[in-house]
Formats: sequence, C-alpha cells, structure tokens
Amino acid sequence: MIRNLLLVLVVSGSLLSAADPVRDYVRSHEREIVRELAALIEIPNHSSDLPNIERNAELIRAMFEKRGVATRLLRLKNYPPIVLGEIKTPGAKRTINLYAHYDGQPVDAKLWTNGAPFRPELRDLSGKVLPLDQANYDPEWRIFSRSSSDDKGPILFMAAALDAMKSSGIATRANIRFFFEGEEEAGSPHLAEYLRQYKDLVMGDLWIICDGPVHQNRQQSIVFGVRGATTIELTVYGPKKELHSGHYGGWVPNPAQRLARLIASFSDGEGHILVKDFYKGVVPFNGAELKAIASIPPVEDALKEEFGIADVEGDGQSLAATYAKPTLNVRGMRSVDVGTGGRNVIPAEAVASIDIRLVKGLDAQTEVGRVRDHIAAQGYFVLDREPTDEERRKHNKIAKLTSGAGRGFGYNSVRTPLDLPIAKDVIRAVEAVSGKVVLIPSAGGSVPLAMFQEVTGMPLILVPTVNHDNNQHSHNENLRLQNLWDGVAVMAALIGMP
Amino acid sequence: MIRNLLLVLVVSGSLLSAADPVRDYVRSHEREIVRELAALIEIPNHSSDLPNIERNAELIRAMFEKRGVATRLLRLKNYPPIVLGEIKTPGAKRTINLYAHYDGQPVDAKLWTNGAPFRPELRDLSGKVLPLDQANYDPEWRIFSRSSSDDKGPILFMAAALDAMKSSGIATRANIRFFFEGEEEAGSPHLAEYLRQYKDLVMGDLWIICDGPVHQNRQQSIVFGVRGATTIELTVYGPKKELHSGHYGGWVPNPAQRLARLIASFSDGEGHILVKDFYKGVVPFNGAELKAIASIPPVEDALKEEFGIADVEGDGQSLAATYAKPTLNVRGMRSVDVGTGGRNVIPAEAVASIDIRLVKGLDAQTEVGRVRDHIAAQGYFVLDREPTDEERRKHNKIAKLTSGAGRGFGYNSVRTPLDLPIAKDVIRAVEAVSGKVVLIPSAGGSVPLAMFQEVTGMPLILVPTVNHDNNQHSHNENLRLQNLWDGVAVMAALIGMP
Repeated sequence: MIRNLLLVLVVSGSLLSAADPVRDYVRSHEREIVRELAALIEIPNHSSDLPNIERNAELIRAMFEKRGVATRLLRLKNYPPIVLGEIKTPGAKRTINLYAHYDGQPVDAKLWTNGAPFRPELRDLSGKVLPLDQANYDPEWRIFSRSSSDDKGPILFMAAALDAMKSSGIATRANIRFFFEGEEEAGSPHLAEYLRQYKDLVMGDLWIICDGPVHQNRQQSIVFGVRGATTIELTVYGPKKELHSGHYGGWVPNPAQRLARLIASFSDGEGHILVKDFYKGVVPFNGAELKAIASIPPVEDALKEEFGIADVEGDGQSLAATYAKPTLNVRGMRSVDVGTGGRNVIPAEAVASIDIRLVKGLDAQTEVGRVRDHIAAQGYFVLDREPTDEERRKHNKIAKLTSGAGRGFGYNSVRTPLDLPIAKDVIRAVEAVSGKVVLIPSAGGSVPLAMFQEVTGMPLILVPTVNHDNNQHSHNENLRLQNLWDGVAVMAALIGMP
Repeated sequence: MIRNLLLVLVVSGSLLSAADPVRDYVRSHEREIVRELAALIEIPNHSSDLPNIERNAELIRAMFEKRGVATRLLRLKNYPPIVLGEIKTPGAKRTINLYAHYDGQPVDAKLWTNGAPFRPELRDLSGKVLPLDQANYDPEWRIFSRSSSDDKGPILFMAAALDAMKSSGIATRANIRFFFEGEEEAGSPHLAEYLRQYKDLVMGDLWIICDGPVHQNRQQSIVFGVRGATTIELTVYGPKKELHSGHYGGWVPNPAQRLARLIASFSDGEGHILVKDFYKGVVPFNGAELKAIASIPPVEDALKEEFGIADVEGDGQSLAATYAKPTLNVRGMRSVDVGTGGRNVIPAEAVASIDIRLVKGLDAQTEVGRVRDHIAAQGYFVLDREPTDEERRKHNKIAKLTSGAGRGFGYNSVRTPLDLPIAKDVIRAVEAVSGKVVLIPSAGGSVPLAMFQEVTGMPLILVPTVNHDNNQHSHNENLRLQNLWDGVAVMAALIGMP
C-alpha cells in the first residue's frame, strides 16, 4: 500500500550515477534480475488465496536461503505466514529489520491490457511488448504485473542486493532481518498478533519499511514518519421523523442547524481547533526536523493555483510544517438532501463524518475522547447508539458519536527523529548511492505503522523505491526499470549500513 | 391542493346538528346531491388534458347557469379556462368571491382499488361497494374518485347550497362570485395573469378559498392566513477538486467546516435568527389573533411526545403563536458523504438547502437579500453561479446563493385580520351552521395565495370543508358523506352572508 505519501513534495534534483560496485553488478546482471523478478511476480498473491500465498512464501524463502540467509516461516493460525530471514553479522552492534509485503491488491483481469495480471510483460514507452530477455534494457521500459512495484519489487531488490554485495565483496556490518508480511493489502489484520507472538525473533534496533513510491520527480526520499488517523461519525438527533417545515419550523429544533453549530464550535474558523486539550501532548518538530522541512523546495503557491484557493490555514507555515499538528477534518456532512432532492422538512437527523489526523504524542482514543467531551460540554447527551424514547424525553440535545478508534480502526502517528544516530546512518547510506535525498520528517497522510513501534518499541523509517506512476492498486501496475536498478542499489546500501 | 394546513391543531368539539332549513333540504335530497357529484367527478380533469378540461368547465358552467347564476368562461391563450359565475344581489354592499378549482392531481389507475380513478364509487367503512342510489346514507360512507374532495367537492357543495337556499327561501345578501380555476394542481401557473387580465370582472371585497381539509378531529376551522415561502440553495466552495485529507488537512480550508460556521451564524442556537433585519417589517399578531390562538386547545405536550423531543424553540409560546415569525430552516445539507460513503478528503464544496417561511409584512425577495447580505458580511464573495478561476484567485471565501424567490418560486404570506368586519361576518356565518369553529390566524405552512391579494388587493380567508383523511393527491381519494352534507351547509352560510 503506502502510496502517495510524498505526493505533495515537489523537489528538484538529479539521480546520482555513482560508479560503485553494486551499480556495476546490476548493469551486468540486468537480465538475471528481470528474470528473477518475473518468476516472483507471476504467482498470484491475494492474501485470501492461501495456496498461492504459500507458494509465494516458499519461493521467497528459497530466494533468500540460496543467498545464505537463515530463513523460516512464522505461522499463526491459518494466516498468511511471515517470511523471516536473518543475517547474523559477527561483531554487529545493531539489528536492522527490513520490512516488505508479498501479498497484493485484488485484480480484475479484464481491466489489464494483456488480460493477465500475473503474466509479467516488459513493455517500452509506446506500450509495445518486448521479450523479457534483452541484451540492453532502456531504463524507461517497464515490467507490468500485479505487485511488480507494490510490494514484491523491493523484496527482489533486497535479494539482488545480496548478490551484488557478495560479488563486490561488501559485507554486512549490522545484523539484518528480512520481514515479509503476507496480508498488508488486507489491512495487516494480524500483524500486531504476529509481532507479539514472535517478539523475541524480531526485536532489533530499527524497522525500515520498504514500500511505496518515490516522489514524482523521481528523486529518492526518506520519510521519518506518518500522521496517525481515526474517524468520527457524529449524528445529531432532531424529531423522530422528518417534519413539515411550515407546520413546525421555528418550534421544533433543527438537527442540521445544531450539527452546524457543533461543527463550528470545533474551530475558530481559521484552522485552529478549539476542542479542549486537542493539541495537548503534541510533540513539535525539533531542530533537525525543522531544518529538513526548510530544505524542501516551496510548493505552496503552485498548489494554491492548482487547487483554486486564495488563502490557506496553518499560520503562514509551509505545508510540510503543518504536519506537526493534528487535524479535525469534516470529510462529509449529510442531512436529508439538497438540490432537486430538497424537501421542505425539519430533518430527523444530521450526520457529519470526520477524520482526525494524529501526530506524535497523541493517542487516537484519547483524541476521540476529547472531541466527545467537547460535544458534551456544548450541552449534548452523547451516546454511541440511537437514543431511546426515554432518553429523548430527558435530553434536549442528543448526539451519537462512533469512532474508528473505538472499533479498532484508529492508529497513532509514527515519527522517528532525523537526528537519531541510526537515522543519520540511514540517511548517509542512502545518500551514498542516491545523491541528495529529500528528508521528510512526517508525511501528511497516514499508514498504520504504529503497531510496529507499539509492540517492539523500535524506531521506524520509510524508504520508498518504486516509481510514483506505477498504477499501484489499480490495473496495469508496473515497475520502471530505472527504479528497479536504483532500488537494488538502495537496498544494498541499507543491508550494508553499520 | 392545500392539504394539512391544519394538521397541527388538535381540538376538541362536536359538530352542531343544527335544525336549520339548509340541513333539512340536504337530508331530503341526499340521493340527488350524490348523483350530481358523481356526474361532476367522472370527467377526467388533469389540467394538461384540455378536451376533458373543457368538458369540466362546460358542465360546471351549466350546473350554475341552471341555478340562475350568470356564468362565463374566462379565456387566456390556450390555458384551462376560469369558470366565472355571478349573482348580483340588489342593494348588496359587498361582493364575495368563492374560489375553488376543478382540475385534479395526476392519477395512476393501477393503484386505485377499482382501477378507475374517474368511476365514482360509494363504499361503506368495510370497503364494500354500494349502489350510488340509496334510501338512507350512512354519513361515514364515502364516495371514491379523483377530485371528490380536492377540489370538485366544494364546487358541488356550492351548487347544492344554491338549491337548498332557494328551497328554503334564503336569499343572497351580498353579490356572490364563483371563481373556479382549472390548473391549481399544476401550481396555478397562469392565475396571476388571469387575475390581471380580468381584474375588472373579479374585483370585490373578499376571496374565500374553498379548498383543503378540516382538522383531524373533524371540527370546522377557518384559516385567516398562511406563511409565505421561499428557498435558498447555498454552496460554499473549497478546493477545485476533493483533496486527500492527510496531505492537505490543516492547510487547505474545508468548505464543510465553513458552511457549518455560516449556518451557525444564522441563529443564536435557540431559534432566534441573527441575520440582520430578518424580522424587520414583521407584523405581529394583533389582539384578536392572539385571543384566537389562546383559544386553540394546547397540543404542544402531545406533539413533543410524538416527535420525541424534550424541548422546543419559540420562547415558550404555543405552536400557533410561533407562526407570527419567519423561519430560516436548514432542510438539507450535503458534502461528499457520510457513513460507508465517507472518504478521507477535504470536500470540494458543501451545500445547504434552506427554506424560509415568511409572515405578514415580509417580502420573499427582500428576505433572501437579507440572507445574502449576511453571508457577505461574514466575508464571503457571494455569487449566483460557480466562481471563475480568477475569482478563486482573488477571494478566500466564496459562496453561491440561488433562491426560489429569484426564480419566481417564492411567494409571500397572506394574513387577514380576524377582526376585520368582513372576517367577523364569515366567522358568524360559519358558526351559525357549524357551532364553535377553530379560528386559526395563520397556518404554519404555505400556499401560494399571495397573488390573489397582490393583484386584487382583496383580503382572503380559507374555509376548508372536506375530510382530512381523503387521500388527497394520492390514489383512492374520497369524500366522507358527513363532510359532503356539512359542506353544503357551510357553503350556504357563505353564499348567504351579508
């Protein structure tokens, strides 16, 4: 998954054409690398297709075993297994866990150009199908197949990186673990359970999440955090049924008007949330993070023009700087209908759907509780279900609040300080093969990564490698060859880091 | 049309069984009356069915001609004609116009029990079909057919009233006009044009609108006014397209939040509208109106229980008293979606649909203008169309406001003082045959009656007569026989008034 995290960062820069031994190896083994990727991505991999999921896990295990990595399949109930690999390095002071996932999004074969989501095809820019075996590969050609990019590509990058390192005599310095999940696209429903069950086998110093695309300008980025997210569904009750607005307007309270008032009370109208303690606990960006943000080329004016907006919130900060703050966003509202569906009624209820983005220092459940308290402080009797007749008799203002956090869907933010020694080592390692990297203290979006930290207490960094225009999650998913070659180099840098 | 205006008034009382000559006549001519009604309602009468509309108009004209009423068909273009009848009374000091309409709602024959909306049937309470000709009619039996109640019934009541008066030797005292419209159910699209064109023929002292049902408890009512109505569709603009709420939340202003704030600004949250001058010009209920309202049996507690609400707006007044005030009712809101349709986006726009109820002294266009001014005063650039890119660049807050008033759909309130001498005469006349009548200074709902006043300057009073449970506008429309007998008595009282 993990897509578009970097969507908003328009940066300039050029790829480093390093004359290093890993890149040399890749250049002289392109055909082999493409073939091995094709063998990996031709196995269907929807997480509910357990026989094929097993085939995938076994193949990946074999790929790493043959490269000298001690592997095992972690199993829990009948869930897709975790493929765990480990390189123990004598004298290592750290253990680095490289995460990727081998399952993929569902496919609708008829939407794919070749009608075969699991038949890897090499195509040039015009869409012409080429033999997989080539003497010379144009780096703009692409390999099409489900999971070519998301997220089997990075698994293959790691395997090829091991070959390149061996061939170049580059040894590991840290202990390296490979942790490949088989149900990420299903929302990682058992990941936390796996992590708890096998905690002893996975504890280390850092998670590196190898998933997601680099930026649109194709420059390498490293992302040190994501905002967390939860949702609130808020219903304000009016009369038990819609009422004629002529007969009862001005006498029966209108729930749409009340909901509007409640939503208005959430903020000052200029982007500052007024819910009591909403910002309490927020960990602001530190000096290193602010410095990184200041280095991101400004995008704000171009975005305002693109979006057709004259002004923004955020107190004049750059967009990336605003990711230090949680948000309370009204993502939808509904009461009766508007336009031709409008009727002259007092609505029976009005509903708002809200998403909250969480930052470091905040907890989803706590934050939802603060919103609930705020609503109660506005005079509402707050339920998590429909009111009874008796409750309607007793309470003038009644609201229902249900939350993603309450149902287990909320997840907290993750943010790893850029100036952590291990973070600095990651930056150094990637920059050594990719040149200047865009450092993103936090993406604005959300990915449920908090469970990694919550169970293991280890910091976490995201290193995306595939092309942004990979049709991830959609039909005709693909991997650009330049990203394949670069990806191997980046993985070698990570596997070889101190 | 005119239905349910009285829905909210739960009153107690009993019908007067007056031993008056009109009721005596009716009792001895029930079979004739039923037959003549059947002949009238068996002609299809949708306003677009011009050949049948003509047949209706000709029959009605003939019905009144044979009773000595001078009649003519007013014609304008190819619109359904107005049937105009006149009784000139020597020495009369007043001219009373009795309005009804002879067109009906569309029909869907397959929904009708007998499959024939224009085949009048007499049925008992069990639904058993009885011959139209009966020696004795149970007053709870009903005649089924389109327009039996809405609104050919009252036309027949008037014709039968003339017979009863003649038979009883009751003479008219005022000049009486019968004004029967043929396209009320289509929204009276040409009524104002007719009134203007034939103003000289229709000018008089009072319009009595004979349409609509009496109250659910079957007690006779007189309604002296209705609120006017107009609508506003209000759109607040955000970014040109929905945006990812993670990437842009907290930076790009949210139009749903802004719309909520705008709606909240319309009122104080306790039913008082804060739009500047919103109440300016309101004519409060006068002493006679307040006295009538005080006589309406209280319904508030029962309604609160029925609606499941603990408290109401209106500063502790009775429901009927609140009809003195205009309302601004949010009848619908929409932005993206809620529930399972919710998406983590900043909406591109948010829309509210509003209906405004107008009272005496207010004008629809003016009131909409006040709302527009209020929105502008909140910092909005207010358009009546989508903003251009250039406008988006220049204005931070942009709203679109369109209105029923602007499109010609708004209409003002009508309210006739109860203590007007002519109003007192109407009350006296109806009470003489119906006993204690519920006097309603204004209904809460709206019917486009203002054009009668605006063109002719004459006051207007509504006298409903048919049963409330008549399935008006729906299939199996019917007229309860007791309402038929009572209706003739009420019409005779009106035709015979001074």
